[in-house]
Amino acid sequence: MHRLYLLLIIVIFSLPFPLAAQRARDLGVRIGVLPTGKLNAITDVNGVKVGHTTLAIGDSIRTGVTAILPHDGNLFQQKVPAAIELGNGFGKLAGYSQVTELGNLETPIVLTNTLSVPAGSAALVDWTLQQKGNENVRSVNPVVGETNDSYLNDIRGRHVKTSDVLQAIQRATTTNQEEGCVGAGTGTVCFGWKGGIGTSSRKLPQKLGGYTVGVLVQTNFGGVLEVAGAPVGVELGKYSFKETLDKSGDGSCMIVVATDAPLDARNLKRLAKRALLGLGKTGGIMANGSGDYVIAFSTAYRIPHESSSPLETYPLLRNDDTSPLFLAAMEATEEAIINSLFMAQTTKGHQGHTIERLPVSKTLEILKKYGKVK
Amino acid sequence: MHRLYLLLIIVIFSLPFPLAAQRARDLGVRIGVLPTGKLNAITDVNGVKVGHTTLAIGDSIRTGVTAILPHDGNLFQQKVPAAIELGNGFGKLAGYSQVTELGNLETPIVLTNTLSVPAGSAALVDWTLQQKGNENVRSVNPVVGETNDSYLNDIRGRHVKTSDVLQAIQRATTTNQEEGCVGAGTGTVCFGWKGGIGTSSRKLPQKLGGYTVGVLVQTNFGGVLEVAGAPVGVELGKYSFKETLDKSGDGSCMIVVATDAPLDARNLKRLAKRALLGLGKTGGIMANGSGDYVIAFSTAYRIPHESSSPLETYPLLRNDDTSPLFLAAMEATEEAIINSLFMAQTTKGHQGHTIERLPVSKTLEILKKYGKVK
Amino acid sequence: MHRLYLLLIIVIFSLPFPLAAQRARDLGVRIGVLPTGKLNAITDVNGVKVGHTTLAIGDSIRTGVTAILPHDGNLFQQKVPAAIELGNGFGKLAGYSQVTELGNLETPIVLTNTLSVPAGSAALVDWTLQQKGNENVRSVNPVVGETNDSYLNDIRGRHVKTSDVLQAIQRATTTNQEEGCVGAGTGTVCFGWKGGIGTSSRKLPQKLGGYTVGVLVQTNFGGVLEVAGAPVGVELGKYSFKETLDKSGDGSCMIVVATDAPLDARNLKRLAKRALLGLGKTGGIMANGSGDYVIAFSTAYRIPHESSSPLETYPLLRNDDTSPLFLAAMEATEEAIINSLFMAQTTKGHQGHTIERLPVSKTLEILKKYGKVK
Amino acid sequence: MHRLYLLLIIVIFSLPFPLAAQRARDLGVRIGVLPTGKLNAITDVNGVKVGHTTLAIGDSIRTGVTAILPHDGNLFQQKVPAAIELGNGFGKLAGYSQVTELGNLETPIVLTNTLSVPAGSAALVDWTLQQKGNENVRSVNPVVGETNDSYLNDIRGRHVKTSDVLQAIQRATTTNQEEGCVGAGTGTVCFGWKGGIGTSSRKLPQKLGGYTVGVLVQTNFGGVLEVAGAPVGVELGKYSFKETLDKSGDGSCMIVVATDAPLDARNLKRLAKRALLGLGKTGGIMANGSGDYVIAFSTAYRIPHESSSPLETYPLLRNDDTSPLFLAAMEATEEAIINSLFMAQTTKGHQGHTIERLPVSKTLEILKKYGKVK
Repeated sequence: MHRLYLLLIIVIFSLPFPLAAQRARDLGVRIGVLPTGKLNAITDVNGVKVGHTTLAIGDSIRTGVTAILPHDGNLFQQKVPAAIELGNGFGKLAGYSQVTELGNLETPIVLTNTLSVPAGSAALVDWTLQQKGNENVRSVNPVVGETNDSYLNDIRGRHVKTSDVLQAIQRATTTNQEEGCVGAGTGTVCFGWKGGIGTSSRKLPQKLGGYTVGVLVQTNFGGVLEVAGAPVGVELGKYSFKETLDKSGDGSCMIVVATDAPLDARNLKRLAKRALLGLGKTGGIMANGSGDYVIAFSTAYRIPHESSSPLETYPLLRNDDTSPLFLAAMEATEEAIINSLFMAQTTKGHQGHTIERLPVSKTLEILKKYGKVK
Repeated sequence: MHRLYLLLIIVIFSLPFPLAAQRARDLGVRIGVLPTGKLNAITDVNGVKVGHTTLAIGDSIRTGVTAILPHDGNLFQQKVPAAIELGNGFGKLAGYSQVTELGNLETPIVLTNTLSVPAGSAALVDWTLQQKGNENVRSVNPVVGETNDSYLNDIRGRHVKTSDVLQAIQRATTTNQEEGCVGAGTGTVCFGWKGGIGTSSRKLPQKLGGYTVGVLVQTNFGGVLEVAGAPVGVELGKYSFKETLDKSGDGSCMIVVATDAPLDARNLKRLAKRALLGLGKTGGIMANGSGDYVIAFSTAYRIPHESSSPLETYPLLRNDDTSPLFLAAMEATEEAIINSLFMAQTTKGHQGHTIERLPVSKTLEILKKYGKVK
Repeated sequence: MHRLYLLLIIVIFSLPFPLAAQRARDLGVRIGVLPTGKLNAITDVNGVKVGHTTLAIGDSIRTGVTAILPHDGNLFQQKVPAAIELGNGFGKLAGYSQVTELGNLETPIVLTNTLSVPAGSAALVDWTLQQKGNENVRSVNPVVGETNDSYLNDIRGRHVKTSDVLQAIQRATTTNQEEGCVGAGTGTVCFGWKGGIGTSSRKLPQKLGGYTVGVLVQTNFGGVLEVAGAPVGVELGKYSFKETLDKSGDGSCMIVVATDAPLDARNLKRLAKRALLGLGKTGGIMANGSGDYVIAFSTAYRIPHESSSPLETYPLLRNDDTSPLFLAAMEATEEAIINSLFMAQTTKGHQGHTIERLPVSKTLEILKKYGKVK
Repeated sequence: MHRLYLLLIIVIFSLPFPLAAQRARDLGVRIGVLPTGKLNAITDVNGVKVGHTTLAIGDSIRTGVTAILPHDGNLFQQKVPAAIELGNGFGKLAGYSQVTELGNLETPIVLTNTLSVPAGSAALVDWTLQQKGNENVRSVNPVVGETNDSYLNDIRGRHVKTSDVLQAIQRATTTNQEEGCVGAGTGTVCFGWKGGIGTSSRKLPQKLGGYTVGVLVQTNFGGVLEVAGAPVGVELGKYSFKETLDKSGDGSCMIVVATDAPLDARNLKRLAKRALLGLGKTGGIMANGSGDYVIAFSTAYRIPHESSSPLETYPLLRNDDTSPLFLAAMEATEEAIINSLFMAQTTKGHQGHTIERLPVSKTLEILKKYGKVK
């Protein structure tokens, strides 16, 4: 090899820039017993689209928008069955009661920061009213979740604009698998490290139904971090209540669960509840100051806004056959949270605050010590 | 009598302007068995303030904002105990989950139209961030309710602005008793007639605790109207499902219940639930397309945002003594809804639509026929 | 007229025995706007069976059992969709959580007195285990409701036995329309008068779907009685909190709603909630000490306990078409409660306590005064 | 050492009888970061008593009763604040609605098998009626939980009698720390191994409030077992859905959480919810066929059944200070479940079925492999 070429390589590896982050599974971390989908992302659920707008501007803006679309059509005219589970309700989620009452979702799901929920909601109304076919729509139930990124982001400035939300929706693709400091995860903090967006999926073997469950999370919470069962938080010496009754356990986690299994709203709510168990497995505690919500939807059928028939007929999965989906939601949530940590980058923001990324090398050493990676 | 005098009277009665509307009770209609407070309004609860911004502009804007403030201080720093009951959740109420989780309210309650909930929420965030003492606040839970005034109002135009919301808050007084086509009631429709804002209160006799319960409603729903038990809807020939499976039963009712009784969040939720019984007594059915919510709060004590002590000590009413309050909430809600009808005026609005006010004279005749007024 | 004939009539009217009671509608009382089913009873819903065991024994036993069966088959093997709404939860209802979680009912519904819920539950387990085809059943979710008949009944004696419960089930017929002091209503008190079992139904016109909604109630609660909107309680001078903070508002109301409309558990829960509005219309307040529950089920389809397919396909009514059913549930509940009063008889029981029946003649006079009967 | 003595030791170690089981912590397994209470049991919460009746009779009876008493006094007259969280409601828990409505507990908590809930409820009514001071009590809300032990127990025989329940209550002591195959855990199965009763506690450091949280569990559920984060289920080759869609994930977990922290019902419900996260950490999935409930109560204050004052005044912990308790409930639940496995013994029962105890030696090897014990 030419000497200069070699030198170049050495220089590159010496640069202070972060190396490309890798997902937990790519580093040998195995979470759960079920196989993942192809992309190991929520977009493994057929038709589901994800898009991000990342606002990392100047010294103080570290926020953004993440949009999840159940399908590519007119969501208002072709709603999807949905349910929302409240883990801990210290949050500003918009849209809860109508989803719960009617059992369906009629807009994309938007995630952003706490004080930008009104902007997110306004944008979803805009988007819906403007869609072809919705000229007579006069009622829209925007579903917008949030976490509080105010340590790194000038949240009081409310920098998310309608156009940012629309951009996230427009950019959404069925292959998106971005993670870390993107979209609504740009400024979040998780277990004291840089959090962000994470995603994962499970594809049930045919004998268990063959369905896919995909999860996307926006992580901004605390507790006592465990990675695949290894006590990473304790080993790194950083966890909630270690010294005092601080608020490090606070923050929030937004969890979106998609599936192609034909579930009705009742069983989607049950599915959503299991995602919280996955959060628990990472060491999350749903602290008092946490807004932990799970929004679950199915792509298996669509509920038309209007219909000439008073009856609807959809094949639905029997209660008895839901359990493997529950395990899938739990595993995918756990892995999505861990991915959000592995894929995030050290971020400096508002008021000079800096949040380090999870020290991945050390974490891998800890995982080795605990037999979790080879 | 002097001829000119007589002529004057004739002229006055011939004018096309509506005569001053009167509240049901002033016309001899008695609802319930408990005495009212002094103003027969939610503002009878000590310290509670109400303000309206009415947007009746041009041909098409018939909407507005109503703000209810539990007290005059910094609501974020001095929260009040609160609860929300979902009657029928086809609505866009903001703030549900945090009130439910933490049992308190930290902003004024704002009512407006369906598509202006984001504007209402944004304005409450603005208002809170700007208040003295809130310089470090980075999380706000705005509580905003709505009904859909799109028959009379160009709702898709989203004409409610931040300044309108702030104005409603600033105008709020402890003596407000405006009703009918004001504030968030400007463009609403109730039982096929013009609805609007209504209010009423009950003051328990000392032997029942002596507490006051005040209610304010934004009426925009359907069913089979009854006034003090008289079948007014049937007699007037206008009620839901009379001919076909129309949507006339849809719409929504926002109900705010205030009390000075020392209730915690659990008992406030129970109180809120009884307001729905009052709605039922007017003939409301909580139709599928209805967003019927009750927000209840107590002014008996305040919950500081921050405290040097981990403990709070408030005298609380025992379960056993809550029942008279339940009756009070039920009666005041029924009367507030009826007031909203009696006090509303015929309104012409969007796309030339007109909604007549309840024909009060005929209604009084019906009430006479049914022995309800003399 | 022949003198002897006249004499006979005089004698008959002088007898101290109660005349046959009549249902409200038979006396000209009209409640609501929708037509009733054929029997104006829950048994108008095709296949629904009702049976009573009345225990009026000696001086002190005034209690009983009422059983409602959704269909004639093996209920455990062929479950029906169901939901339960908690109005006020001061009661001992068995079976809530499983019905809510799984959305179905697998036993008859049994109503009895408060302290006999364990006996009722044990009997339903017995009954289920013994049915042909259930030889391997090892888990049963008995649904048993109650009200507290301890004023007239020696409730501490727990006189309801397994055989009494089984008898109520065995006696159940599809034409049962017994009311008043029968079954679980034998010893109950309602608005200070003798309560009991009441039933009513509504049959929607074809244009509204053509479905039937039937209601059965066990009435044992207080408040301020209204009959078809007339202030009967006030006129009779008997209502809660008239003088003091007594407990006369306490007690409970069990409400069972059956329909042949194809609703899933979510919409059955919504239907159940409307029954509470009907309770409110009679003047019930869901007092602190009240156990007010609504159990709703549909006979439109059955959910097999076991199935070779993981999928179930039932045509379900769209949300948009549910509202007339809501009105039907409300009206039938109101009328069922009033029937329970009209059909009850003065009852003397435990410790010499006597509860008078509603003075029906006076009540009819009041109804005349208020234009409610001719 | 004398030869005979040595021989004796050899003989003892060769016997087929199980050696005394040891709790997880005694074997070096550390769960969580918070310190345990003195006994590492629910009885660490001051005044809380636990008692068991174990029914291991003949070939087929493998069941029992566990009673938990919040205090030693008359529980009906001196109720304790309480709440119940439904994890997965496929269960027969008695008492849910009243605890939820009124926010208190008025009987001991009894755990038993699924079909003996009526017997447990009847016994609690008996017990309450017979207590001195309760001569006029005519309404009792028994709280009885269950899991289904029908694989090892002749559950259809319903062998639990009133006397068994009373005995468990009478035997209750403030130092009880029995675990494994006792009481309601006699016949249960957990993760495919013998489950049973487990208990654990956490004592918060003074800086976090100094409160104690104690947990007792009755384990009878499935999933993918993890012990302190080590994948024991996978390593042992036994976990749910490994091969087929079996029902091994089903079963139930009853969880009782006691604390001396002064929480009201709302915050007790939040505390209860965190216990489910602890269940998730052991690999539980709240499968479809699972009845997973958490009953939480506080011993910090008592609510008198009757009072001369309409007001109650209790110092209550602020929301902000609850988070460490949440972590404590989570940790103690996880450890209690693991203890139930470590302390159980191989059990042969109904129809010759045998369930092996968790192979503790192998488990410890696995824990060593994963760095969890030394």
